[in-house]
Amino acid sequence: MKLFSVIIASFLTLSGSVCISQTNQPAVIDDFKPSTVNQPGQEYPKVNSQGYARFRIVAPQAQSVSVSLGLGGRGGTKLAKAEDGSWMGTTEGPMDEGFHYYHLTIDGGTFNDPGALNFYGSTRWESGIEIPAHDKDFYALKEVPHGNVQQILFPSKSTGTSRRAFVYTPFGYDKDKAERYPVLYLQHGWGEDETAWSNQGHANLIMDNLIAEGKINPFIIVMTYGMTNEVKIGGMRNFDIKPFQTVLVDELIPYIDANFRTLADQSHRAMAGLSMGGYETHTITLAQPDVFAYYALLSGGTYSPTEITDKSKVKLIFLSCGSRENPDAVKKAAEALNGVGIKAVSYVSQNTAHEFLTWRRSLYELAPLLFK
Amino acid sequence: MKLFSVIIASFLTLSGSVCISQTNQPAVIDDFKPSTVNQPGQEYPKVNSQGYARFRIVAPQAQSVSVSLGLGGRGGTKLAKAEDGSWMGTTEGPMDEGFHYYHLTIDGGTFNDPGALNFYGSTRWESGIEIPAHDKDFYALKEVPHGNVQQILFPSKSTGTSRRAFVYTPFGYDKDKAERYPVLYLQHGWGEDETAWSNQGHANLIMDNLIAEGKINPFIIVMTYGMTNEVKIGGMRNFDIKPFQTVLVDELIPYIDANFRTLADQSHRAMAGLSMGGYETHTITLAQPDVFAYYALLSGGTYSPTEITDKSKVKLIFLSCGSRENPDAVKKAAEALNGVGIKAVSYVSQNTAHEFLTWRRSLYELAPLLFK
Repeated sequence: MKLFSVIIASFLTLSGSVCISQTNQPAVIDDFKPSTVNQPGQEYPKVNSQGYARFRIVAPQAQSVSVSLGLGGRGGTKLAKAEDGSWMGTTEGPMDEGFHYYHLTIDGGTFNDPGALNFYGSTRWESGIEIPAHDKDFYALKEVPHGNVQQILFPSKSTGTSRRAFVYTPFGYDKDKAERYPVLYLQHGWGEDETAWSNQGHANLIMDNLIAEGKINPFIIVMTYGMTNEVKIGGMRNFDIKPFQTVLVDELIPYIDANFRTLADQSHRAMAGLSMGGYETHTITLAQPDVFAYYALLSGGTYSPTEITDKSKVKLIFLSCGSRENPDAVKKAAEALNGVGIKAVSYVSQNTAHEFLTWRRSLYELAPLLFK
Repeated sequence: MKLFSVIIASFLTLSGSVCISQTNQPAVIDDFKPSTVNQPGQEYPKVNSQGYARFRIVAPQAQSVSVSLGLGGRGGTKLAKAEDGSWMGTTEGPMDEGFHYYHLTIDGGTFNDPGALNFYGSTRWESGIEIPAHDKDFYALKEVPHGNVQQILFPSKSTGTSRRAFVYTPFGYDKDKAERYPVLYLQHGWGEDETAWSNQGHANLIMDNLIAEGKINPFIIVMTYGMTNEVKIGGMRNFDIKPFQTVLVDELIPYIDANFRTLADQSHRAMAGLSMGGYETHTITLAQPDVFAYYALLSGGTYSPTEITDKSKVKLIFLSCGSRENPDAVKKAAEALNGVGIKAVSYVSQNTAHEFLTWRRSLYELAPLLFK
C-alpha cells in the first residue's frame, strides 16, 4: 500500500509542473545561454547561472501563450507579448538542476516549443529543457571511448509484434570476442518509453564515463518499453503486470542471451526501474526470483523484508529517490532489509524531485554496486 | 552547373509544400484512418484510401490554424473551427504516396502537430505523415530476422567533438564472428540529419526484408551527419565540402573499419546520398577515387563521363529520382556513362517527387546492385 501511494503521488509530480526552489529569490542575473537540449541553432529557451529559464515564442496573432514550467499551483509561466510580436517570459524563480519536461499552452491548445528538442514523457513527445547541474560532469559527453546504443527489434509471440529495445554495449564489446558481460534491464517511468534512458537519462554516457574512470566493470544495459502508457493515473490497482512480464522474461531476455555475449544466469542479471518502472521491477523481481539477483527501485517504492521469500537469492537491493520526494522511506526500508540480512543500499539525490537528475545520479550510484 | 540547378530546384521542393496529384478529384471517401506515424494513441492526422489527409487541432482561442500540406501555391490547407472548439480540415486533393514533412501555422507562428511524430527535416524536428503506398510492403516491419541500428559516438579531431553516426548491422552479425561485410555510407539531404535514413527512410527494414527474401548479400550501412544545415538554400556554391570529407574519410571510415567487421578496401565500399547528400557523394567520390567503388545519387544530380578520370576504379554508378523531378536527366546521364564503358543504372520512382518514398525505393533498387 505504501508503494502504491508513493508511486501515485509521484505520477502527480511527473505530470504536473516543475518545482521551483523555495528559497528567497535573488536578483535575476542576465547571463542567459541557450539550453543544451535546444534544437540546432535555436537561441531560446535560455537558462541563466541561477537556474531561471527564459522563453520566446513567435505567434504574433495569438491571444495567450504560457509555459508549463514555473510555480505549479499558479499555472506555470505566462508569456507577455513583446514589441516584435513574439511572446517572452522568465520563470518566477530558479528551477531545480537537471532535466525538465514542459509544453506550451497557446490559445487553449497544447503544443511543443519549436526551440527545444522533444523527449517522450507523459505519453507524448514533450519539449525538454536542461538546467545545468553542478555535478553534470558525470553524464557529460567526453573524450573517452564510447559504447554503442543499439536499436534491436525482437520477436514477441505473446503480443504478435516485433518489439523495440535499446541495448547499450560498452566500448570494446566488438573487439574482444571471448568476453561475456552481465546485463542490467533498466525500465523507464509512466508515460515514457524505451528511448528515455538514453535520451534524457544519458545512461550510455554515464556508463562510458564510469568505465573510463575504472570505477566499474563493463556491463550491458537493455532498455525496452514497459507498456506503461496503458496505465491511467490512479489506476495502478488494475494494472496487469503479466503481459509485460511475459515480454521481458520469456521473450526479451532469451533474445538478448541468444544474440549478445551475456553471462546468462541469475547472478549476472539485474533489474532496475524508475517510478512506475520501479513498480514493475518490484513486482517482477519478486515473482521471478530465479531470474534477477540485483533489484533497484529509483523513485519507485521500496521492498519490505517480508516480501523476500529466499534471502539467499538476492545479492543487492538498491533504493533511491530525490530529497524532495520521500527520502526517509527509502532509508528506513534499506535499514529494515539490512536488519534481516539482506544487503540493501539507499541513496538520496540532493535538491531534486521526481525527475531525471534524480535517476541519472541513481544510476551513477547503482552501477558500481552491481555484479560484484 | 546542371547538378547545381537540379539540387537547388530540389531544395525548393523540399522546403515548400507537397505536391497534390493533378488528376480530376473524385468524391472524398470516408474511410479515414490514423496516419501510421502518429504519436501513440492519437487519432489525428488521418488519411483515407485515396490519399486525402484530415487534420484536427485543439486550440479553442486561436484566430487561424493552417497546415503546410496541400496545394503549395495556395498556402497549404486552412483549417476551420468546429463546434467543439477544435480546428479541422482536409487536403483539397489526394497527396502523393509516401512520407511528407509538414508543420502548422497557428496565429502566425510555426508549430508541430501534437498528433504526429516528429522527424528531422528543414533543420528542425517537423511533423510527419504517411500516405500508405501501394508498394509499402518492401519497407514494412515484418516477422523476419531484424538487424540492429547502433548509435556510435566516434572521435573527430578535425572538429574537436565526439560525433554521432548510426550503423546498421544485419541480423547474424553478432553470431558469425568470422564473417566480414562490405559497407555503404549513406547520406541524408539538406536540413536532415543522421536520423533520417532510419526514421523516415526505414533503411533498416528495407535491408531486413531484402536479406530475408534472399535478394541481397548482407552489408553494413553507416549514416552520419553531413553538416548540411550550414548550407542556406541557393548558397551551394559557397559550401565547402572539405570539413565533412575529412570527418567521413579520415575519421569515420577508419573508426568503422577498426570497430566493426568490415571488408576494409575500396572494392567493398559504397557511398550514396539523397538530394544534397548526393552532391556530397558526387564531390567526395570524385575527389577520393581510391576510397569508394560504388557511387549512388538519389535525387542528387548526375555524373558526366568526363568527370571520371579512371574508369577502372568505378564498379557502378546508380542515378535515381522521382518521376515528378527530372527523370530524363538521370536516364540520359546513365546512358552517357554506359556509352563510355562505365556501368551505370538509372531508376525512376513513379508518381513521387523530391520526397522519401523516392529514396526508400531507390535504396531498394540500389542494394541488390552493390558489392557484386
